[in-house]
Amino acid sequence: MDLSKKFLAEFFGTFWLVFGGCGSAVLAAKYLTPDGVQLGIGFVGVALAFGLTVLTMAYAIGHISGCHLNPAVSFGLLFAGRMPFKDLIPYILAQVLGGAVGAGFLYFIASGSGNSGFDLKNGFACNGFDEHSPGGYTMIPCAVAEALLTFFFLMIILGATDAKAPAGFAPIAIGLGLTLIHLIGIPITNLSVNPARSTGPALIMKFQGSIDWPVKQLWLFWAAPIGGAIVAGIVHRLFASESKN
Amino acid sequence: MDLSKKFLAEFFGTFWLVFGGCGSAVLAAKYLTPDGVQLGIGFVGVALAFGLTVLTMAYAIGHISGCHLNPAVSFGLLFAGRMPFKDLIPYILAQVLGGAVGAGFLYFIASGSGNSGFDLKNGFACNGFDEHSPGGYTMIPCAVAEALLTFFFLMIILGATDAKAPAGFAPIAIGLGLTLIHLIGIPITNLSVNPARSTGPALIMKFQGSIDWPVKQLWLFWAAPIGGAIVAGIVHRLFASESKN
Amino acid sequence: MDLSKKFLAEFFGTFWLVFGGCGSAVLAAKYLTPDGVQLGIGFVGVALAFGLTVLTMAYAIGHISGCHLNPAVSFGLLFAGRMPFKDLIPYILAQVLGGAVGAGFLYFIASGSGNSGFDLKNGFACNGFDEHSPGGYTMIPCAVAEALLTFFFLMIILGATDAKAPAGFAPIAIGLGLTLIHLIGIPITNLSVNPARSTGPALIMKFQGSIDWPVKQLWLFWAAPIGGAIVAGIVHRLFASESKN
Amino acid sequence: MDLSKKFLAEFFGTFWLVFGGCGSAVLAAKYLTPDGVQLGIGFVGVALAFGLTVLTMAYAIGHISGCHLNPAVSFGLLFAGRMPFKDLIPYILAQVLGGAVGAGFLYFIASGSGNSGFDLKNGFACNGFDEHSPGGYTMIPCAVAEALLTFFFLMIILGATDAKAPAGFAPIAIGLGLTLIHLIGIPITNLSVNPARSTGPALIMKFQGSIDWPVKQLWLFWAAPIGGAIVAGIVHRLFASESKN
Repeated sequence: MDLSKKFLAEFFGTFWLVFGGCGSAVLAAKYLTPDGVQLGIGFVGVALAFGLTVLTMAYAIGHISGCHLNPAVSFGLLFAGRMPFKDLIPYILAQVLGGAVGAGFLYFIASGSGNSGFDLKNGFACNGFDEHSPGGYTMIPCAVAEALLTFFFLMIILGATDAKAPAGFAPIAIGLGLTLIHLIGIPITNLSVNPARSTGPALIMKFQGSIDWPVKQLWLFWAAPIGGAIVAGIVHRLFASESKN
Repeated sequence: MDLSKKFLAEFFGTFWLVFGGCGSAVLAAKYLTPDGVQLGIGFVGVALAFGLTVLTMAYAIGHISGCHLNPAVSFGLLFAGRMPFKDLIPYILAQVLGGAVGAGFLYFIASGSGNSGFDLKNGFACNGFDEHSPGGYTMIPCAVAEALLTFFFLMIILGATDAKAPAGFAPIAIGLGLTLIHLIGIPITNLSVNPARSTGPALIMKFQGSIDWPVKQLWLFWAAPIGGAIVAGIVHRLFASESKN
Repeated sequence: MDLSKKFLAEFFGTFWLVFGGCGSAVLAAKYLTPDGVQLGIGFVGVALAFGLTVLTMAYAIGHISGCHLNPAVSFGLLFAGRMPFKDLIPYILAQVLGGAVGAGFLYFIASGSGNSGFDLKNGFACNGFDEHSPGGYTMIPCAVAEALLTFFFLMIILGATDAKAPAGFAPIAIGLGLTLIHLIGIPITNLSVNPARSTGPALIMKFQGSIDWPVKQLWLFWAAPIGGAIVAGIVHRLFASESKN
Repeated sequence: MDLSKKFLAEFFGTFWLVFGGCGSAVLAAKYLTPDGVQLGIGFVGVALAFGLTVLTMAYAIGHISGCHLNPAVSFGLLFAGRMPFKDLIPYILAQVLGGAVGAGFLYFIASGSGNSGFDLKNGFACNGFDEHSPGGYTMIPCAVAEALLTFFFLMIILGATDAKAPAGFAPIAIGLGLTLIHLIGIPITNLSVNPARSTGPALIMKFQGSIDWPVKQLWLFWAAPIGGAIVAGIVHRLFASESKN
């Protein structure tokens, strides 16, 4: 498979992840009927949406690029010895670019409503800590949660795609694993475990909304997920080599 | 497989999609206990219902007709070179007819309640824009959303049914893909991505309820989904031919 | 496989369907925190629970008895030519007995709460029409809905277990198909499509709660589902024979 | 597969089950917007989270340790003749240790919020009966529910991993089976069916919060699940041997 095709697959896949996952949060999490009944999808629907972006793309483009859609996943697979180093930078570029374009389309659509719940001050589903954490969590717990959840996300990915695991089911395990991760952690940081998913909406906020904090807090959503993913990659490699004893 | 059998499969399948998907919205989205607690399924349940109509039918009739249930899907597969041109019109006829009959049965049942939430003014789950968009979205964002979501729906369908994708899982990817699409977009247009799903309830509203707007706005829910699907079909074909280089 | 083993499988399976499905409705649909926030699972959780009882049992006992758990399913398979006539009565006996014992265990547990929402007047998840329909639907729409939904349930079962459908996935299609059916129809009749599921709670209400209406309305929840299932069985047989032309 | 590797797999797996399952309950079940709209995941999201911890781990580590993550499951498999006796104690140690460390990490993160809903008095998702049952259920119904639900959980596990069941699908049946069990029973005991899941949070409460009742009530959440699991193991063995007649 040539690299340009992989690049396109990662671009469209991450576009879908950010447009769909963040879109469900921005457009549909809260929707009140005129008499005040909440029909919106809430965090359970947002968690399902994020997971299903990955599940659907893993079946659609998994055979092309492996469907990482996430720089932390690419780093984890690199350290687990499952990805050539030369693909790392092109994959990450495609992911960040796809996430930014997906966030741009979402911004355009979300801005098109007279009376929807969309409001720049709600942060456009950006990831944040301290006063920008939905539940008011401080920096250290946020970093621990992001690193730990990414660690387990990579354990699921590496285990479910192992040659000894049943074939064909990995997209279900990985997609629903991302749903699970969001069920746990949306109140902490709005949940990232994915630097590209954090970067897209943050860039849009900076250039369209003149809101700076998502870009300023972006470092944590690169460092913690990639850190957790690298540890998982190394653990899995040691673990796997152990099995040859 | 002879065409009459495919026709019947598409008819029953689209009947199920409209009866089940729109039915969940009309009958069950909102249900308050006497003391005002919302037990209804909300948008998350409606999204699940739409997706499961396709998942269930894809396993039940996929081996007969391919389970399109959607003129946009048929157009997309045509442009991707996966469907013979001679099947296009019969498929679309079966889909529109099935959707209309399904909407008719739903209307009969929904009208049979003394105190339910059913009310013609709520639009019978019809798709709409401007003042008929649930979240008040204007025409252009609605058209962009419908075209973009149908584009990705076709990318999922074409990718998950590719010979290189794991066999047997496509109905899960496609059905849950439609769930995901509804999780994102119900507040925008009540979500169509399917001209037959839009047409059935619109016809019932015109003839049973003397409500004209759903039929008047129907053009957008034919043009945008089919447009997005054709682009996806062409992109996929180029993409696939590329892989032979 | 000897009949006594099939009998046991159907008994335990239908016990699980009624205990789990009705149990989720009776015990967990509504749960308010002390400050009045609804944490209960609502109709979406009840729909998921009913479907998952069938999905789980279909993987657990499908290879023993076929996992009908439902007299209407047994009738439908009989008319489709997929089940020997001599098994019909033992299957139905096992299903009704299992459903009644499951409802009995549920009654014992539900009665053990001082301050829960359980209240005999709520009907113990019994199926009903007219003033006993949750949404106030009259008899004819209730009968049409039960027959139509059972018809499609059997179409899913017969299609997904067809030799041409992908192997192993039928429990997912059938279980999530029952979830879908509940997403549509709980407000109509509390949703049956299964005479054994209706009979268990109705018997408990009669003997433990001196409440007569569930037994009096039971005829509809035998007639309509079995009627719809027989039509589906016949349609499928004609459909299948057609394919040999 | 050497035992140390199985031990590590059970440790990480049960860490994930407790961190993810209890984490979803403690961190995300209830989340109100400033204007009082509930966006939290409720019991339906907690049920989904518990099930998905098992589904994801079963695909990730099932080929290493069998993915029990639960002393009751290990006992059930022992009595069904599916696990060597010498593995029992190491498995249970790994599970209890993993659950305790997972609960510790969760405590650290949950304590890091200024304004979240986390409150020691809510019991940190501990299992309890009588006045510590969420719905006020007394001891006997709680014990019956825990034993009965674990019995069926083991029936699902033993049936879905049977050589005659379709290969590869067992994690879906088992994971969603645990979701179903939580949909039924969270209001009864906060739902355990797993002594390791009960023990982790109870130990944290005792040492971090000076709250004694979860440890004092722990005996029931060892006795009832293991009792139900042993009965299931024996029933399955008799059932299976019967099939050889």
